[in-house]
Amino acid sequence: MASIFGQLFRITTWGESHGGGVGVVVDGCPPRLKLSEADIQPDLDRRRPGQSKIVSPRQESDTVQILSGTFEGRTLGTPICLWVKNTDARPEAYAEMKTRFRPSHADFTYFAKYGIRNWQGGGRASARETVGRVAAGAIAKKILRERFGVETLAYVKQVQKIIAEVDPDRVKFKDVESNIVRCPDRRTAEKMIRLIERMRRAGDTVGGIVEGIARGVPTGWGEPVFDKLEADLAKAMLSLPASKAFEIGSGFGGILLTGRQHNDPFRANRGRVFTTTNFSGGIQGGISNGQTIFFRVAFKPVATVMHPQNTVDVHLHNTTLKGRGRHDPCVLPRAVPMVEAMTALVLVDHALRHRAQCG
Amino acid sequence: MASIFGQLFRITTWGESHGGGVGVVVDGCPPRLKLSEADIQPDLDRRRPGQSKIVSPRQESDTVQILSGTFEGRTLGTPICLWVKNTDARPEAYAEMKTRFRPSHADFTYFAKYGIRNWQGGGRASARETVGRVAAGAIAKKILRERFGVETLAYVKQVQKIIAEVDPDRVKFKDVESNIVRCPDRRTAEKMIRLIERMRRAGDTVGGIVEGIARGVPTGWGEPVFDKLEADLAKAMLSLPASKAFEIGSGFGGILLTGRQHNDPFRANRGRVFTTTNFSGGIQGGISNGQTIFFRVAFKPVATVMHPQNTVDVHLHNTTLKGRGRHDPCVLPRAVPMVEAMTALVLVDHALRHRAQCG
Amino acid sequence: MASIFGQLFRITTWGESHGGGVGVVVDGCPPRLKLSEADIQPDLDRRRPGQSKIVSPRQESDTVQILSGTFEGRTLGTPICLWVKNTDARPEAYAEMKTRFRPSHADFTYFAKYGIRNWQGGGRASARETVGRVAAGAIAKKILRERFGVETLAYVKQVQKIIAEVDPDRVKFKDVESNIVRCPDRRTAEKMIRLIERMRRAGDTVGGIVEGIARGVPTGWGEPVFDKLEADLAKAMLSLPASKAFEIGSGFGGILLTGRQHNDPFRANRGRVFTTTNFSGGIQGGISNGQTIFFRVAFKPVATVMHPQNTVDVHLHNTTLKGRGRHDPCVLPRAVPMVEAMTALVLVDHALRHRAQCG
Amino acid sequence: MASIFGQLFRITTWGESHGGGVGVVVDGCPPRLKLSEADIQPDLDRRRPGQSKIVSPRQESDTVQILSGTFEGRTLGTPICLWVKNTDARPEAYAEMKTRFRPSHADFTYFAKYGIRNWQGGGRASARETVGRVAAGAIAKKILRERFGVETLAYVKQVQKIIAEVDPDRVKFKDVESNIVRCPDRRTAEKMIRLIERMRRAGDTVGGIVEGIARGVPTGWGEPVFDKLEADLAKAMLSLPASKAFEIGSGFGGILLTGRQHNDPFRANRGRVFTTTNFSGGIQGGISNGQTIFFRVAFKPVATVMHPQNTVDVHLHNTTLKGRGRHDPCVLPRAVPMVEAMTALVLVDHALRHRAQCG
Repeated sequence: MASIFGQLFRITTWGESHGGGVGVVVDGCPPRLKLSEADIQPDLDRRRPGQSKIVSPRQESDTVQILSGTFEGRTLGTPICLWVKNTDARPEAYAEMKTRFRPSHADFTYFAKYGIRNWQGGGRASARETVGRVAAGAIAKKILRERFGVETLAYVKQVQKIIAEVDPDRVKFKDVESNIVRCPDRRTAEKMIRLIERMRRAGDTVGGIVEGIARGVPTGWGEPVFDKLEADLAKAMLSLPASKAFEIGSGFGGILLTGRQHNDPFRANRGRVFTTTNFSGGIQGGISNGQTIFFRVAFKPVATVMHPQNTVDVHLHNTTLKGRGRHDPCVLPRAVPMVEAMTALVLVDHALRHRAQCG
Repeated sequence: MASIFGQLFRITTWGESHGGGVGVVVDGCPPRLKLSEADIQPDLDRRRPGQSKIVSPRQESDTVQILSGTFEGRTLGTPICLWVKNTDARPEAYAEMKTRFRPSHADFTYFAKYGIRNWQGGGRASARETVGRVAAGAIAKKILRERFGVETLAYVKQVQKIIAEVDPDRVKFKDVESNIVRCPDRRTAEKMIRLIERMRRAGDTVGGIVEGIARGVPTGWGEPVFDKLEADLAKAMLSLPASKAFEIGSGFGGILLTGRQHNDPFRANRGRVFTTTNFSGGIQGGISNGQTIFFRVAFKPVATVMHPQNTVDVHLHNTTLKGRGRHDPCVLPRAVPMVEAMTALVLVDHALRHRAQCG
Repeated sequence: MASIFGQLFRITTWGESHGGGVGVVVDGCPPRLKLSEADIQPDLDRRRPGQSKIVSPRQESDTVQILSGTFEGRTLGTPICLWVKNTDARPEAYAEMKTRFRPSHADFTYFAKYGIRNWQGGGRASARETVGRVAAGAIAKKILRERFGVETLAYVKQVQKIIAEVDPDRVKFKDVESNIVRCPDRRTAEKMIRLIERMRRAGDTVGGIVEGIARGVPTGWGEPVFDKLEADLAKAMLSLPASKAFEIGSGFGGILLTGRQHNDPFRANRGRVFTTTNFSGGIQGGISNGQTIFFRVAFKPVATVMHPQNTVDVHLHNTTLKGRGRHDPCVLPRAVPMVEAMTALVLVDHALRHRAQCG
Repeated sequence: MASIFGQLFRITTWGESHGGGVGVVVDGCPPRLKLSEADIQPDLDRRRPGQSKIVSPRQESDTVQILSGTFEGRTLGTPICLWVKNTDARPEAYAEMKTRFRPSHADFTYFAKYGIRNWQGGGRASARETVGRVAAGAIAKKILRERFGVETLAYVKQVQKIIAEVDPDRVKFKDVESNIVRCPDRRTAEKMIRLIERMRRAGDTVGGIVEGIARGVPTGWGEPVFDKLEADLAKAMLSLPASKAFEIGSGFGGILLTGRQHNDPFRANRGRVFTTTNFSGGIQGGISNGQTIFFRVAFKPVATVMHPQNTVDVHLHNTTLKGRGRHDPCVLPRAVPMVEAMTALVLVDHALRHRAQCG
């Protein structure tokens, strides 16, 4: 159950960072959608390590293969299995990890839970698991775009203390992709890149914030109680590796306002209802109100650093461990397609749920 | 599906703020647990309106009845249905709401989704729905305490800009309950109470932060990928009315640190592993590491204020609406038992899931 | 989880034969459906004991109350909680059952599983649990009828060796209800009634077959693999108390034919496809083909007989037990509304699922 | 959702008869189980076409590959993805099927549902989909055997009118495997084989009954209401291609007995409770009672026959269609491992569920 997400558009990811590969099965996809590897590969390329000087230099091509669920270029309505072979297996790079738990990684907790772990890399806890999510998310984004007129987008909003200015109602995909840090505010992007490079050289790492948005979501998606749209988004985001926080609309900042200041007044114009402010972030009572949905996700600094750190080994002796070879100074540029994917997966699921009950 | 929460300890809440009552069905409860209404009523009393001068003055006794699932004072292992009758029905108080949508409430989105709404109060979007959660949560807390030695607790950490000092490893339930705002830092609590009273008199409202903790959680609870412990907590919290944000451990603040500063070093002592800092908030890779779990939830200022606000009516004409009679200046004191309940529901579910797969 | 049925139209039944009552929560019901107690009570009256001389004489009025989910006579789209109070509590009638396990009842297995049981009647294993199913089924039948033009029906096909002649394509509800055994073949019905009365006088019981049908189901409902329409029907039927077997279309009898004889030839007429025989029972590859769906369910003879039978007590000593007072000679007349209800619950769930994915 | 089975030991099958292959993802497998391809391949060999003269002559090696979820020969507790490549792709063999619907196959209903179909073979409706089930079932059987001491077994009980004598309490795996029809009653097996060969030569097909059993199941597995053990078994069996009926214990035959004759008396001996007859088939009230579980599944004669049959084409014109080349005269020998697999999948799921709630 741990590896299944969604109620109606349901994905199951599988695979470890080392082994036969990683992948995903998508169950519940509407039939007759045009789909080929070319629809999926671009997002995987945005996710993969080695794409620029400021991300993990690990080299993997991450080439996706559709194993089932399509016929003559269209979806059949049956499960779509997507597979990306592992190619960068270097067990020797992980020799030390066989006996020592990396601090703030999942090595210790996996071992505590299962009594066994794949010490060659992060196993299921590796960011590599997100290959399946991003691949499935590419399908979800296509459905949202083609069948529901909904656009999903994400970008880097903040790296450590460097904050970008971005307007969720106007930002464009090509602005996000115009630089390697995926921040559409170009001048700020340059500062972010310089900071990340400095961190890389120092063998250290840095975290920040990715903002996710959805535009064109009609009113009525989401559910009233437990499966509120923001609740499912929160779960989706906190399920991403290294994420530590989620806020929708005004978020933590909203608590500085009073109710009078914080409420979003409704106005109507030619039969269309809208709000003149959007502290709600496009969702009220768990259900979309037609405004732009936007939220922020905090990602901690990557745990692997090039300095010795205190830890324990599998025999429960105190020791130290130091990252070796190559490290990823900042997960944010690669987190952008992950946030987009999870956003799209949540939305397409709720689109189908809404159609089922109220269609 | 909207009203079902949990995989193995699964609850279904039902009921509107007006109508035959509100309640919950708990499916999957372990058998032979001692249980009577007396185990549940105290938490409902902490949740109910009218309990103090700083919360909603609506008067309801919220008396719980166990309709099924117990025999001779013990659980049978079969579904437990809990029911709280509605008593405070004053439809006339809601007359204006029949035609006008309250800003930043769920009136508009419900109507947009379902084409119908119970305009007598908030219907399912009312905080009254949480009666069922708190009642089920009382059972979950009892299981955690008696069968797993786990303690769950929540308290008000911040009201607007007033921030309390609380040590998650030491704070006690009786300190939380020592004042009406449920903040264990007594001097700060007084300031909070004064602020809330001022807001009430001004016909305005204020938000803040509830911190939730769990102590004594063993290593190994939680799941690696989508159902990470923090992901399920995030969903649980964002499903509470008026919540806007969630952060675990270092949360948004963690992005100001570098990886070297942020990692939690492991140490071992007499066969027990612990971390010397706890930026992780007790969870690593989705799985508990044995340290105290702690997280924060932001609640926006209550939407009902005693001032006219712009809005639209059901005919999509622009108009204004002003809260009438009585209002709730701050949801935080009543959100404390809600956060506790949702925390306990997530944890007991994962306790059973862990036992199923790894037991 | 044990007490939840359905994916999108999801019901949770609760309650024991003795205690505060029995009921059901229906989650996922489409909004704006006209609904009052009067839509549900008639099916409960068909289900209840004491309705005729050939069923259990236990006297209960089984009056249903809608506790939530409707407003001004229409469904809100939120959970509908239905409650039927227990009135016939005579714990003294069950005194012997406190210590002895009734043969072929669930007393022993419940105790083995949970280590506790409500010995006052059958607890959750009582046919009384089906009150919730039949109530929810009445809603499902209404949706099928009003929104999808589908009719569901069931009737007694066989009592012991007495077999009725019924044409699934033509049988009418009023013919089913024209006699107390609910067999639309009137002459056979009389024989069945005489047999059941003889059994009652002899303190013995008798079983038989209920046939369920659905007419007007469009092509395309059902799923290809695990959630085949016939698979979900089979589960639904085998979940009814005392059921032992299920067959769809040609069923066990179909194995006497060869493939050439058994295949259903397709024909087309004015753009409509149909089959000239219906061995498939209206479902092919798990998906409805537009023909009448029909299936049969075997119910064993009721386990409670008025004769001493070998059994063991809770101390695992050999002993005997004899039914006391009143007994139910045949479950079939009351099983008819149960089969109808479960059929409707399966179909409405698949109707919504089909609309979600392919709508 | 259509392709996911189980609550805690959850499998997702994927793949069409033609395309990149077929497979399964197993989520929720207990960790540290010894597992390699050698544990799975034997059951796939028992399932595959071409294994003997009386089954489909289609030649596929069906070689399984573990893509994830194991490390150094043991399960990690994370999803296990199993893949079997398709090798026998002969699209030309299916040219006629492109435009004509095969009678009593799923061609028509798939097209009616999805508006698209993979006409190269049966797509998801092909028996080839069961590769994933049998592979996952091999893991389930291993868990049952090694961790719970439970043995699952199936065999051919009847081919058309030829009925075997088999004692469910004593029959052995090697007796089942001693002949190509998989009937442990050797003399009857020979008659069955002769009948099937005659059918093959006549271009016709024949159906029959597979009996499934489980020995050593402890008391207490199963759930009281919807997820009764027999209900989940019924669903599992009716989800198999070509199955039409299911009966547990006395089944349809039980209705010929009265309650006095049909009840299973309990006896106790040295603290162990058993029943002196087993009409219940090892399950009472949905929960295992410790006796041998046994049930029967009817499989219709295979639909593909070597004779012209009436049907319609995709333009809804009446036409005929005749099977070409090679056909499968009887699915039963290959259905045996399928029934075993589904039995094991249901049981291991309930074993884990029981441990979660009552462990």
